Amino acid sequence: MGKNAGCFQGCLHYMFDYETSKTLVIPNLGVGCFFRFSQLLIVLYVVGYVCMVQKAYQETDSAISSVTTKVKGFAFTNTSDTDPRFWDVADYVIPSQGDNSFFVLTNMVITPLQTQSRCPEIPNPSTTCVDDCDCIEGYNDPRGNGIRTGLCENYSTTAQTCQVHSWCPLEIDTKLPEHALLAAAENFTVLIKNTITYPKFNFHRRNIRPHINSSYLRACEYNRATDPDCPIFRLKHVVSEAGEDFQDMAVKGGILGIMIDWSCDLDWWAGKCLPKYSFRRLDSKHPVNNVAPGYNFRFAKYYKNRDGRETRSLIKAYGIRFDVIVFGTAGKFGIVPTIVNMGAALSFLSLLPMVSDWFMLTFMKKRDLYSKWKVTYLDEDAVTGPVSMGTSYGTQ
Amino acid sequence: MGKNAGCFQGCLHYMFDYETSKTLVIPNLGVGCFFRFSQLLIVLYVVGYVCMVQKAYQETDSAISSVTTKVKGFAFTNTSDTDPRFWDVADYVIPSQGDNSFFVLTNMVITPLQTQSRCPEIPNPSTTCVDDCDCIEGYNDPRGNGIRTGLCENYSTTAQTCQVHSWCPLEIDTKLPEHALLAAAENFTVLIKNTITYPKFNFHRRNIRPHINSSYLRACEYNRATDPDCPIFRLKHVVSEAGEDFQDMAVKGGILGIMIDWSCDLDWWAGKCLPKYSFRRLDSKHPVNNVAPGYNFRFAKYYKNRDGRETRSLIKAYGIRFDVIVFGTAGKFGIVPTIVNMGAALSFLSLLPMVSDWFMLTFMKKRDLYSKWKVTYLDEDAVTGPVSMGTSYGTQ
Amino acid sequence: MGKNAGCFQGCLHYMFDYETSKTLVIPNLGVGCFFRFSQLLIVLYVVGYVCMVQKAYQETDSAISSVTTKVKGFAFTNTSDTDPRFWDVADYVIPSQGDNSFFVLTNMVITPLQTQSRCPEIPNPSTTCVDDCDCIEGYNDPRGNGIRTGLCENYSTTAQTCQVHSWCPLEIDTKLPEHALLAAAENFTVLIKNTITYPKFNFHRRNIRPHINSSYLRACEYNRATDPDCPIFRLKHVVSEAGEDFQDMAVKGGILGIMIDWSCDLDWWAGKCLPKYSFRRLDSKHPVNNVAPGYNFRFAKYYKNRDGRETRSLIKAYGIRFDVIVFGTAGKFGIVPTIVNMGAALSFLSLLPMVSDWFMLTFMKKRDLYSKWKVTYLDEDAVTGPVSMGTSYGTQ
Repeated sequence: MGKNAGCFQGCLHYMFDYETSKTLVIPNLGVGCFFRFSQLLIVLYVVGYVCMVQKAYQETDSAISSVTTKVKGFAFTNTSDTDPRFWDVADYVIPSQGDNSFFVLTNMVITPLQTQSRCPEIPNPSTTCVDDCDCIEGYNDPRGNGIRTGLCENYSTTAQTCQVHSWCPLEIDTKLPEHALLAAAENFTVLIKNTITYPKFNFHRRNIRPHINSSYLRACEYNRATDPDCPIFRLKHVVSEAGEDFQDMAVKGGILGIMIDWSCDLDWWAGKCLPKYSFRRLDSKHPVNNVAPGYNFRFAKYYKNRDGRETRSLIKAYGIRFDVIVFGTAGKFGIVPTIVNMGAALSFLSLLPMVSDWFMLTFMKKRDLYSKWKVTYLDEDAVTGPVSMGTSYGTQ
Repeated sequence: MGKNAGCFQGCLHYMFDYETSKTLVIPNLGVGCFFRFSQLLIVLYVVGYVCMVQKAYQETDSAISSVTTKVKGFAFTNTSDTDPRFWDVADYVIPSQGDNSFFVLTNMVITPLQTQSRCPEIPNPSTTCVDDCDCIEGYNDPRGNGIRTGLCENYSTTAQTCQVHSWCPLEIDTKLPEHALLAAAENFTVLIKNTITYPKFNFHRRNIRPHINSSYLRACEYNRATDPDCPIFRLKHVVSEAGEDFQDMAVKGGILGIMIDWSCDLDWWAGKCLPKYSFRRLDSKHPVNNVAPGYNFRFAKYYKNRDGRETRSLIKAYGIRFDVIVFGTAGKFGIVPTIVNMGAALSFLSLLPMVSDWFMLTFMKKRDLYSKWKVTYLDEDAVTGPVSMGTSYGTQ
Repeated sequence: MGKNAGCFQGCLHYMFDYETSKTLVIPNLGVGCFFRFSQLLIVLYVVGYVCMVQKAYQETDSAISSVTTKVKGFAFTNTSDTDPRFWDVADYVIPSQGDNSFFVLTNMVITPLQTQSRCPEIPNPSTTCVDDCDCIEGYNDPRGNGIRTGLCENYSTTAQTCQVHSWCPLEIDTKLPEHALLAAAENFTVLIKNTITYPKFNFHRRNIRPHINSSYLRACEYNRATDPDCPIFRLKHVVSEAGEDFQDMAVKGGILGIMIDWSCDLDWWAGKCLPKYSFRRLDSKHPVNNVAPGYNFRFAKYYKNRDGRETRSLIKAYGIRFDVIVFGTAGKFGIVPTIVNMGAALSFLSLLPMVSDWFMLTFMKKRDLYSKWKVTYLDEDAVTGPVSMGTSYGTQ
């Protein structure tokens, strides 16, 4: 029993005796100041830079977003080539339902009344011919416009070209109007509704702020300085904010990014979380290293003519595609990143004595004295252990 | 040679002598318990919270996803205004090919047989006129429906309005049916196929699980409780899971998010990685601060009439756009985050002696005794160093 | 005044006296080597693995992207079932304007001249009837093709089925051509223009590299080995790179992912940031556990016939949807991750003495000697302080 108690006490002592390092106080202002100053620097770095500037105490999440767009406006075209025509949103927004991007038609080449038939190719070095032998039947020239029938035909009074099976008449897309047909598109407006979610924080937000009322929204127009909350954008303004000229861009088309930045600090002391709009042209407008500059695509409207045959109007549509690009990272206080960042900084604090010791034992005048007091060299022969170290303390 | 050997031995000693701090064991249960308990707390925090709960030992990656949707169902409408009509998927899903979102038409205002022509404006304060002087030719009222021709015309027996060049007859979109035309759309179903990839882990997964067979898939219907694996969703169920009423929503339209959460733990001991579906209305249904509540867009079907003139049917389509939003973060054991998190926690362990010492030397009754044993004050006058400790040094 | 000065000096000493731990040097090569070797390992891990391999000193950001695609090519079909027909991009790319994905039609079932009318159902067990009593008026069979009118009608000379109100004639989609109609689509090419932004680093990049000129781009074709920079892809090549056969895939359709990986190291010493293309089939081609294998959707072209009634051509379109999936993470030197990772590694360095001490005091032959020199046991009775510390140990 006595033995058990002794053993238990031994264990208790082994477990709960507190082992602390013996220290030496050196009354040297130089080393002391160096040490304290370094400590201060590390603490300042942690508090100031890591916490304040980088907000490294925060967990982050990426925004997921849903966008709807609605374009408004109409235009009237009346050029020498075409009939007078009125254009509304169902005509110039293609496809009619945009989600993250919408396309506004600004210029076009229309080839009406195409039917499946045969017609001579558009003249170019590879299509001109002298007689039928130059036109191999069934040949499919990747740069041509159809399948050769094997005949050589008059394209005009001066040129003969191979006949092809295709949608005829062929499109002549070099006749693009030099001034955008729908130049009036610059005054169209678009309403962008955007909802974002940060799933990790269960945070939802709309770009139409709750305090805004309907009547304001009906009349407002986005302006970085005077109306930064309004979700209605005039296309001309969007393009000019991106540093481009609308009329220039409208001729050949292009891609314009409407970026909505939802980067937010969701800690309660951080206040508001608002979208920041910015605008940037996304395609390359430089004619160098640029195949198919601008932005265009072809689509067709299909009709049946009176005898039931299919005809189509082929439209090569030039215009501006507006890509609504929503991004953002939200941060919120999180215990793990806080611990990690503080811990990492603290490990520098615990590295500091090593540096200070090295500094002291290398550069101080009295380094030998300090070394004598600080460092004990174990003498393996003195098996009885260090004799009377404490006396020096007693004299203090 | 003897000198070289001595020098080498000196270097060896300098490099490989082990320098350890001298420690003092204090048989004080209070401080000891405090110290051990704090150690335990830190270890528990690291193991329990950081590792178990937050899984901070994991590297993470975001999902990239590909979605296809296929709607099934048909409806029959027979109201007093319209002819009886049968609707199938080619009629009510616009555009016909949805990827991340699909739109189901539920209500509409059709304006058939529009042609490019002239007609009087719809009466409102800014369009009514008394004579031609009130209508400026070429004026383009942003709230109107066309370009004014300069004439004032009878709209009805009681009202005169300015004539405009537009697609005539004009759309009167106030005549929206109060009950959704395609109320039957609530019974349509949609099959959602979703593939995700975590590129960092080269991990691919489909929402249709491998053990599921075709016959099950042909008959099943998603239900959170009874059929959580089935990728076929009844639209009514989707809307009601989002806390909305389908028939209410169908009248004016709206946006409904089908969120697929692929958050996964990819460590082999973590088991399955399954999609979790949730549903949420994304547009604001509150009539306050809401321009253009609901969701609608206009599109047109173009025809050629008998004499070759273009006519169109303008459809203002109201309906529910279902946005399939796929997100998720996968985690997998990674050596770097493990090291970082453990290291940061360990640095708290190494901070602990500082705190314990301060506690001991400040609050303990015997703090003076402890201090005397622990701390040595260097006496700069005693140039010979600590008495009798140095002897062992001297013999080195 | 003298007292103040003394107090001030006391504070100064309290603040700036440097307190360092007393150390013991043990001339034991074993422990010393173990200690140095461990230090070396940790430093190597930090420098080699964390910095070089994992680049943990970097901040990261995810790419946001904008894509445009333009398909080129044409085909000519001439089968026994259909009229000879020429197909160009406006015919086979649906919808005509793709952004992140584009669909190329390869096979189809066309049901022309459908009108809203009545016709007998396609025979199957649930639609065959003997007399009108078998056909409930208004019944809406989810697997049928229309609303029953209540009549039983001759479908053919041998079969009677219920009459339905629907778009008639009904589609018979079992007659899918066994060889893809637009087999020639394998030679179509697609130009993919991709712009990415890393908003955190204000870094923009295009997949068309600046040094590339127009004439090269007009003629080149992507090939992983010979032409990795060319943004023009032959569809056959894309499909075969994904390990699939184009003609097989073209019959029933499918989804093919074109992944563009923009993972970049933006530090100036890291050199180039280039897109890496890879290709993968995204839908499941295994006929097991696969409802609606392949990829298809239905759309209709609407016409008015001579008497103003609406007719449509219903097309069940099979084809390959190409999803351009852009992803990537950019890294750039950041002070916070550098500090965090170095700090965490350093905390292992500061943990090392604990491990070495434990190793030394447990496994070394002379552990008792080392322990005597290193550890002092406080003797609470010796209130005068540690006289001859070794002796107190001896009495323990």
